[in-house]
Amino acid sequence: MAVITIVGAGMMGSALAFPARENGHEVRLVGTHLDRDIIDACRQTNRHPKFTADFPAGVRFYQLEQLEQALEGCELVIGGVSSFGVDWFGEYVLPRIAEGTMVLTVTKGLLDLPDGRLLCYPELWQQQLDRLGKRLILAAVGGPCTSYELVAHDQTEVCFCSHSRRALERMKALLQTDYYHISLSEDVAGVETAVALKNGYALGIALTIGVNQQRFGPDSELHYNSQAAVFGQAAREMYRLLGAQRQTDLNPFFVGVGDLYVTVYGGRTRLVGILLGRGLTIDEARARLEGVTLESLVVAVRVARAVRIRAERGECSLSDFPLLMHVDEILTRRQPVNIPWEAFTL
Amino acid sequence: MAVITIVGAGMMGSALAFPARENGHEVRLVGTHLDRDIIDACRQTNRHPKFTADFPAGVRFYQLEQLEQALEGCELVIGGVSSFGVDWFGEYVLPRIAEGTMVLTVTKGLLDLPDGRLLCYPELWQQQLDRLGKRLILAAVGGPCTSYELVAHDQTEVCFCSHSRRALERMKALLQTDYYHISLSEDVAGVETAVALKNGYALGIALTIGVNQQRFGPDSELHYNSQAAVFGQAAREMYRLLGAQRQTDLNPFFVGVGDLYVTVYGGRTRLVGILLGRGLTIDEARARLEGVTLESLVVAVRVARAVRIRAERGECSLSDFPLLMHVDEILTRRQPVNIPWEAFTL
Repeated sequence: MAVITIVGAGMMGSALAFPARENGHEVRLVGTHLDRDIIDACRQTNRHPKFTADFPAGVRFYQLEQLEQALEGCELVIGGVSSFGVDWFGEYVLPRIAEGTMVLTVTKGLLDLPDGRLLCYPELWQQQLDRLGKRLILAAVGGPCTSYELVAHDQTEVCFCSHSRRALERMKALLQTDYYHISLSEDVAGVETAVALKNGYALGIALTIGVNQQRFGPDSELHYNSQAAVFGQAAREMYRLLGAQRQTDLNPFFVGVGDLYVTVYGGRTRLVGILLGRGLTIDEARARLEGVTLESLVVAVRVARAVRIRAERGECSLSDFPLLMHVDEILTRRQPVNIPWEAFTL
Repeated sequence: MAVITIVGAGMMGSALAFPARENGHEVRLVGTHLDRDIIDACRQTNRHPKFTADFPAGVRFYQLEQLEQALEGCELVIGGVSSFGVDWFGEYVLPRIAEGTMVLTVTKGLLDLPDGRLLCYPELWQQQLDRLGKRLILAAVGGPCTSYELVAHDQTEVCFCSHSRRALERMKALLQTDYYHISLSEDVAGVETAVALKNGYALGIALTIGVNQQRFGPDSELHYNSQAAVFGQAAREMYRLLGAQRQTDLNPFFVGVGDLYVTVYGGRTRLVGILLGRGLTIDEARARLEGVTLESLVVAVRVARAVRIRAERGECSLSDFPLLMHVDEILTRRQPVNIPWEAFTL
């Protein structure tokens, strides 16, 4: 039995308490300063307020001021903060974790650097650790997994990535169950990039749903020809962005494809894509979804910015990314939706 | 203006009359001996009995005995027969087409040879033409396109494949419209294999829907984690089967991915997958869907048979195709559904 400490009581981090605890580990769920009410509710009901099932018996709940206590003796820390908590996690949590501990993060996202490179969060945190002279084993989880379906014990396959094969195998042993299946990849940047990319591309696919609602009426049957055409194009562009043809490990690409599939059907990215497709501007869509965080939009804009910089340097051609460029134009230049279908044909 | 003759008044062939006629060509739709009532209905109403929209004005309809007349002076023949009509098309129609004519087929399928090779229909017909000493320019269409959505003018992207680049470009010029977009590929076997493969894999994805209905109740929300996991695995296995890592033209693979996406949502393959997932045997599922042709099942079995032969010769490993092998076991060995989730992880 190991001790596994989850920091951040959002849905995804909290959902991992299920396989962790069902495998007999001691599981400690620590809320951030934003999760105070969630932790109170978990203590009272043994259920996360957004879940439809109780936690397995025995999960322990901690408020943030008990973080040190919750981290004591743990073998694995699961980072469960959203992308808005990345800096906080790096500055507040990482320094408090014992040397040599494994840290598996569910946070998805990318930063774009002025030179056109994309930096994933494990890479960002590694830079912070290097400055601190501290050694932790950073890892991340990608792949198609919505938290509520994991809680329902839907069969799920994800991919853990880390530069340490040994850590990957240990984390898989700790967390795999008969419904939670884990691929392993040492290509951290690849998996994290694929997983981040899928958000912008899911938006692109959802555009077609809104366009068809606008054209054929809101209750018209779903138009899968259009969706599938954009899905195929999204897969092409992800493959190019990942440089998959040059890789021997194609796990990142296939993780991205599966993740793209689930993202088209789940939640907020789909909603905003449909609204844009119906003809709303991004500002109107944001207003309509007031209060909903749209991390996916940020990633698409960042990736597009990086690709434009690379194209200026002649390292790639913007004509290889017509879907990404169009999504970016909609988001940053307030252009109307006008999917460049012919640009998709080869 | 060109003359385009469509032989076979099934849904897909007939749907191509829309872009063809809207581009101003003379379009002649010829029924097979099975299509007699369809042609009668088209003549009376200018609408295919299975479509919800009239043909564009001016499409001409022919019964089979008028085939020679319908073929006279045509620049392009579109082959619109089902896979059950492949031999008939090769033996009856091809010899009647004028030397040098382009023939674009919508028929999807593969034959497996005793040596483990897969033979697509254009290859099969080319053998027949070689025996006849006749030259036609064979081409095929693949990609995500359901006929009823094409008729509705949903935005659609397909891929035409042929060994003749010049013919490809001419066919694109003849048929492309502002809603029918056409990629071109000279990898005929690749495109046709990808398009055939997607059927067996769509069945695999649909299994998860039935499994979850069985487990969580028929009205439970769709479980996209499972679907996406199998989708990602299906993409992996298609990539391997196509030898995509060794190809420079990845169009076949991406056409297959888009086609897989649309096939999961459309029609009969999905239905049989769901029934199998709920626990019916293949015989029970067939009985339930009495009268429905299930070409997709045939392809999956043929591909699996070819892969087993190749594996026996040491050319590939069955462990690279756990999903295909499981689908084959369900179909040919009447095994119960038991998706090998762990075999998907790498």
